[in-house]
Amino acid sequence: MPVSLDSVRERDRQDPLADFKSHFALPEGVLYLDGNSLGAQPKAAKQAVDETLDQWRDQLIKGWNQGWFDAPERLGNLLAPVIGAQRGEVSVTDNITLNIFKLLGYILGQGKEGRQAVLSEGGNFPTDGYIAQGYCRVSGAEHRFLPEGGNLAEHLDGVAVVVLSQVNYRTGKLRDIATTTKLVHDHGAEVIWDLAHSAGALPIDLNGCGARYAVGCTYKYLNGGPGAPAFLYVHSDHQDKGWQPLSGWHGHASPFAFEADYTPAGDISRFRTGTHSALAYAALEASLALWSEVDMQALREKSLAMSDLFRECLSDIFTTHNIDDITPSASERGSQVSLMDSQNGYAIVQALIARGVIGDYREPGLMRFGFTPLYLSFKDVWQAAQHFREVMESGEYQDPQFHVRGAVT
Amino acid sequence: MPVSLDSVRERDRQDPLADFKSHFALPEGVLYLDGNSLGAQPKAAKQAVDETLDQWRDQLIKGWNQGWFDAPERLGNLLAPVIGAQRGEVSVTDNITLNIFKLLGYILGQGKEGRQAVLSEGGNFPTDGYIAQGYCRVSGAEHRFLPEGGNLAEHLDGVAVVVLSQVNYRTGKLRDIATTTKLVHDHGAEVIWDLAHSAGALPIDLNGCGARYAVGCTYKYLNGGPGAPAFLYVHSDHQDKGWQPLSGWHGHASPFAFEADYTPAGDISRFRTGTHSALAYAALEASLALWSEVDMQALREKSLAMSDLFRECLSDIFTTHNIDDITPSASERGSQVSLMDSQNGYAIVQALIARGVIGDYREPGLMRFGFTPLYLSFKDVWQAAQHFREVMESGEYQDPQFHVRGAVT
Repeated sequence: MPVSLDSVRERDRQDPLADFKSHFALPEGVLYLDGNSLGAQPKAAKQAVDETLDQWRDQLIKGWNQGWFDAPERLGNLLAPVIGAQRGEVSVTDNITLNIFKLLGYILGQGKEGRQAVLSEGGNFPTDGYIAQGYCRVSGAEHRFLPEGGNLAEHLDGVAVVVLSQVNYRTGKLRDIATTTKLVHDHGAEVIWDLAHSAGALPIDLNGCGARYAVGCTYKYLNGGPGAPAFLYVHSDHQDKGWQPLSGWHGHASPFAFEADYTPAGDISRFRTGTHSALAYAALEASLALWSEVDMQALREKSLAMSDLFRECLSDIFTTHNIDDITPSASERGSQVSLMDSQNGYAIVQALIARGVIGDYREPGLMRFGFTPLYLSFKDVWQAAQHFREVMESGEYQDPQFHVRGAVT
Repeated sequence: MPVSLDSVRERDRQDPLADFKSHFALPEGVLYLDGNSLGAQPKAAKQAVDETLDQWRDQLIKGWNQGWFDAPERLGNLLAPVIGAQRGEVSVTDNITLNIFKLLGYILGQGKEGRQAVLSEGGNFPTDGYIAQGYCRVSGAEHRFLPEGGNLAEHLDGVAVVVLSQVNYRTGKLRDIATTTKLVHDHGAEVIWDLAHSAGALPIDLNGCGARYAVGCTYKYLNGGPGAPAFLYVHSDHQDKGWQPLSGWHGHASPFAFEADYTPAGDISRFRTGTHSALAYAALEASLALWSEVDMQALREKSLAMSDLFRECLSDIFTTHNIDDITPSASERGSQVSLMDSQNGYAIVQALIARGVIGDYREPGLMRFGFTPLYLSFKDVWQAAQHFREVMESGEYQDPQFHVRGAVT
């Protein structure tokens, strides 16, 4: 290996985030580079869920007055500092797909001076486009795709809203929120930021960047558990501009008055819909509690250092085996390494999984490895790279068992 | 008391459902008559959630291939017999509010020959109307209310879809699905049934009644846990009629192909949106597993017998204290007793809660007591009535502490 084990041990000794690993319940024998799909389990999650089960058993309906009902806003306030938002600007609710629909309706319902088009990114995570298409079918607005790699400024004529991901789920490429938001606003449009692959992966300053609307998920870098509820951000200056279309009783100004007509709540809670799972929020709250201690600049430095270490350990292997390292440069990178091998990518990922090194594979040919600074050490990264090297040098990936396509998530 | 304790003990001995109580974790000292708001905890729920926590910890992303991903359809199939549906006709997903929106868009998207109005019930649970209003704001359809007690047939002109609850959440009054569905279809409209207060409370035969569309919740009589996911039913003949508007990646025909354009799945899974909480589904699945053993006719008989017992025990009290028993007759009753006392209703419910008898109160003046045949005995009902009697005869409800309005759910 081009990098010595001793040197990475020294980096672990100097890592200001090293102690966070002790807060996670990690399985033996696994090197987990898929926290960009599903984060690992904080140890506190189990106790929090157990307590909520006990609360359901013992308090029954009274549990709703003992923390369950207010969870969307309370968790939103825990999350706000992680994405550069203020108290009262974030709701933890529903999923990303639904939250994008709410914001599309909320923004287009304000009347955008004849603009009727919704622009979503081609080549990025497709649910953002699917729900934009769904919204447009109901509302009569026009849906357009921004071609992958296209110049955004050239595609904003007649556009009311654009949905953009801060980090591309395939390449890991990072967009600059500040300059892009200004560009979109200068063209008279609004932008909904999708932070699925960036929240908890790098510092985000939504307020400082002038961002008005964002959504994101909490089960990737935020470690909230499988299918944990998503979040929605609306800048405090833009929270009183009408209805969001998924108007349910939890978003009503007086949910327990049971009035016949809908009146949206005066604050971020208008973006709620109906009743939410207390168990799902319990696990997430335990995870979010960790983030108040995290130095986000240190997180960013470690993220970049880990992804660079992995690539440095393997650069000769990439060359020898014609693996294309498409990972963006540090300033344009999320927190993942992206490698292309259309012939053997799938099999390499399967061979690594068989060794306990968990990455994931996306057609065509893309191997993704996520780097989560809270529970990965530099030694973990080095060992994962060593396994990758051995899989390639031994030809292990050529074993036919690793070429059988199964259900892939 | 007009009914002896010995006689109710004999009824418990003869109760064919008596053994189900042993499957629930019930707190000591509580007589729980609020299962129409939040069902009690099945003992199996804790183990199921613990196993899912372990699966998250140990299997990490692989959990999605080990039961999590298929949960909406698998749980739908567990639930189907309880509501008279076939395999493949029920999805457990999102919440009622969102599921109504999906069905409104799905039905109106089919083109209803110039019909543009959505009718929802005044005086019933308001989220059904709120989301109908939200849908209409986006789509341009017209929203109308069916006045409480109004004749449905007189309000169907120009109506494309009507949203009706099988059981009214306030009065407990039951609608006949078969005759009402036929009436609506004969007028050229569709009906979405809301089964929130009936699923798990009484036998339902959606297929036999000609029902095409329904939604419902699982945290009341189905005991799925606080905020457990809702369900959506679409008859097998009507599952391939276009998009539902909340089109997310989990409802795509090929969710893991990550195609740019949305294509709805060919089956009930098209009504999914995005990623769901594995923890929430685990608790619900443990609860639904119990229902395969339940004789729904026996459940109905016990439900009516319990609500009648409660009223029989208290009929003299109601007269003496001017409490209006608005509970419908047996053939028109859900599984609750509804009592009106606009002066003291709130305080009576609070005094009962202080004694461990949990019912709930809804403005103005409504006391609701839900009867859940799986975990209540006739003795429980008798004891709850005895407490009610003592609260009234002693004047305990007049204590000022019980008149202070707090947060009510």
